[in-house]
Amino acid sequence: MAAPIRTIHHVARDQCHLAWDRSIPPVVTIDSGEVVTIDAVDASGGQLGPGSTLADLRAMKLTLCDPVQGPVFVRGAMPGDTLQIDVLELTTADWGWTAIIPGFGLLAEDFPEADATLKIWRLEGGFARFADGIVIPLEPFCGEIGVAPPWEGATSTIPPGPHGGNIDTRHLTVGSTVYLPVFAPGALFSMGDGHAAQGDGEVCGTAIETPMRITVRLTVRKDLAIPELQFRTAGPLASRTNTAPYYATTGHGPDLMASSRTAIRAMIVHLQRTYGLSRTDAYMLCSVAADLKINEIVDAPNWIVGAYLPTSIFAP
Amino acid sequence: MAAPIRTIHHVARDQCHLAWDRSIPPVVTIDSGEVVTIDAVDASGGQLGPGSTLADLRAMKLTLCDPVQGPVFVRGAMPGDTLQIDVLELTTADWGWTAIIPGFGLLAEDFPEADATLKIWRLEGGFARFADGIVIPLEPFCGEIGVAPPWEGATSTIPPGPHGGNIDTRHLTVGSTVYLPVFAPGALFSMGDGHAAQGDGEVCGTAIETPMRITVRLTVRKDLAIPELQFRTAGPLASRTNTAPYYATTGHGPDLMASSRTAIRAMIVHLQRTYGLSRTDAYMLCSVAADLKINEIVDAPNWIVGAYLPTSIFAP
Repeated sequence: MAAPIRTIHHVARDQCHLAWDRSIPPVVTIDSGEVVTIDAVDASGGQLGPGSTLADLRAMKLTLCDPVQGPVFVRGAMPGDTLQIDVLELTTADWGWTAIIPGFGLLAEDFPEADATLKIWRLEGGFARFADGIVIPLEPFCGEIGVAPPWEGATSTIPPGPHGGNIDTRHLTVGSTVYLPVFAPGALFSMGDGHAAQGDGEVCGTAIETPMRITVRLTVRKDLAIPELQFRTAGPLASRTNTAPYYATTGHGPDLMASSRTAIRAMIVHLQRTYGLSRTDAYMLCSVAADLKINEIVDAPNWIVGAYLPTSIFAP
Repeated sequence: MAAPIRTIHHVARDQCHLAWDRSIPPVVTIDSGEVVTIDAVDASGGQLGPGSTLADLRAMKLTLCDPVQGPVFVRGAMPGDTLQIDVLELTTADWGWTAIIPGFGLLAEDFPEADATLKIWRLEGGFARFADGIVIPLEPFCGEIGVAPPWEGATSTIPPGPHGGNIDTRHLTVGSTVYLPVFAPGALFSMGDGHAAQGDGEVCGTAIETPMRITVRLTVRKDLAIPELQFRTAGPLASRTNTAPYYATTGHGPDLMASSRTAIRAMIVHLQRTYGLSRTDAYMLCSVAADLKINEIVDAPNWIVGAYLPTSIFAP
């Protein structure tokens, strides 16, 4: 029988910050190897809830979005060390949201102000129902995992950096181990931005956003030096959706960003044509379920990016 | 009991061409829905063999590389249609090669002339042994799948294009269905460049290159119009390597190409440090086994590319 996880440290829902900044005082101090629980607010910082409407999305202040919970000071962590984060437990709320936010996302030019959309999900039994016959299995992870950056001053929590931050990497589910370089004494670790499910890329700019209850073990690694984020996944990738064929669209050309857009645009057309989805629904479905891969990056001058949609999300 | 595949059409090993060009006369003419077998030479065009050495690689003429077998004229195919290619059978030879070719590959700048490397593999029992304790399961597919391009004149078989070509997409294994737009009467389909295994990206520029015996069914789809390559995979992705945790390295920043390089450079260091590989071996192992994914492409201005190495290839 495994010993129960012993937690004596906790970061509460209101212990969050809106910038990565080494001057933010820690809310908790722990020894290396200790476990912390974190009660993380959703990416809207509590501005959206299960009863929210499009009007609430339009009124949402982007400056209050993507808060992270912490910081946690880990005794002994010094610049040059690596912080190892073992993801022990992740529990979503029973609701989540996905949105098309004007000006944000891979296809921001294609989805202007009039296309602003808010979708509220009910998360139940390990699944989120998108529409009749389309069900997304939950594979929870946190979009934000980071430490204080290597520089002074406040840095937005929106872009990721050498310190991690908004890494939005879907494979960091329970059982994974995350490695980040330490830049400040104590590392000053924070985490948040719960995602119940997401495709590689998070193309519309939002996943299934949800409050998240987090348990992690934080360990200082003096024997390991890494240039930036590395991780070990819990097991096979996308184990809940990688169970049946995928349908893939592609974009080729000398620019990987342009090819990513081409691939997602083609997938949106495929979803409209094959499943009768609206284009805004199709775009959001890509964000929560389709994976962007680089098929080839060496056959100069044209690379290929593929958008891979798991057909397992569609009822037979 | 399934009916055996009935084949009456064949493209022989010497029926290959070194450019995509709508003026190349077809070697075989078939009806829509018929099956063709293709005896495909390897990507060196037969310049390398199971006994080849580095001297042979250095003497290899790049102008003779990446030949494709065909073209096959499919009756009824007209511009605007879609050609559906069902991949029915793929059989590798009992040997293959992987090389670091100077001037070619994602990290060409890091691996100059002196790093030219040729590795000959023995392919046996569905596996290729890389080194003691490192075994790559074979997941064969063809790098080149294409039709005559939308323009006149000869186009290199190295870069992919709207007509497909050197798409190097590892998920097109037996049982997959590939869709390409038709640009010329008869489509003028060709295929080749057998790969016994490859990671997403093919980062060193070569996979496990091998002669391949191919069986495909070609069908004209007048009911489907697509902008460029699309496909349906045979089943779950990377089913032979996606069986255990992955170790991933990442690169972040505003340029996906630079971030891809950063991620692969970090993976090479990881492989050197963890498994004692030389840097040339590590680079080749990335090419045949590691997958490049776009973790996030929306948290402006920094995107994240991850290189994912399946730990299942390492003996416990």
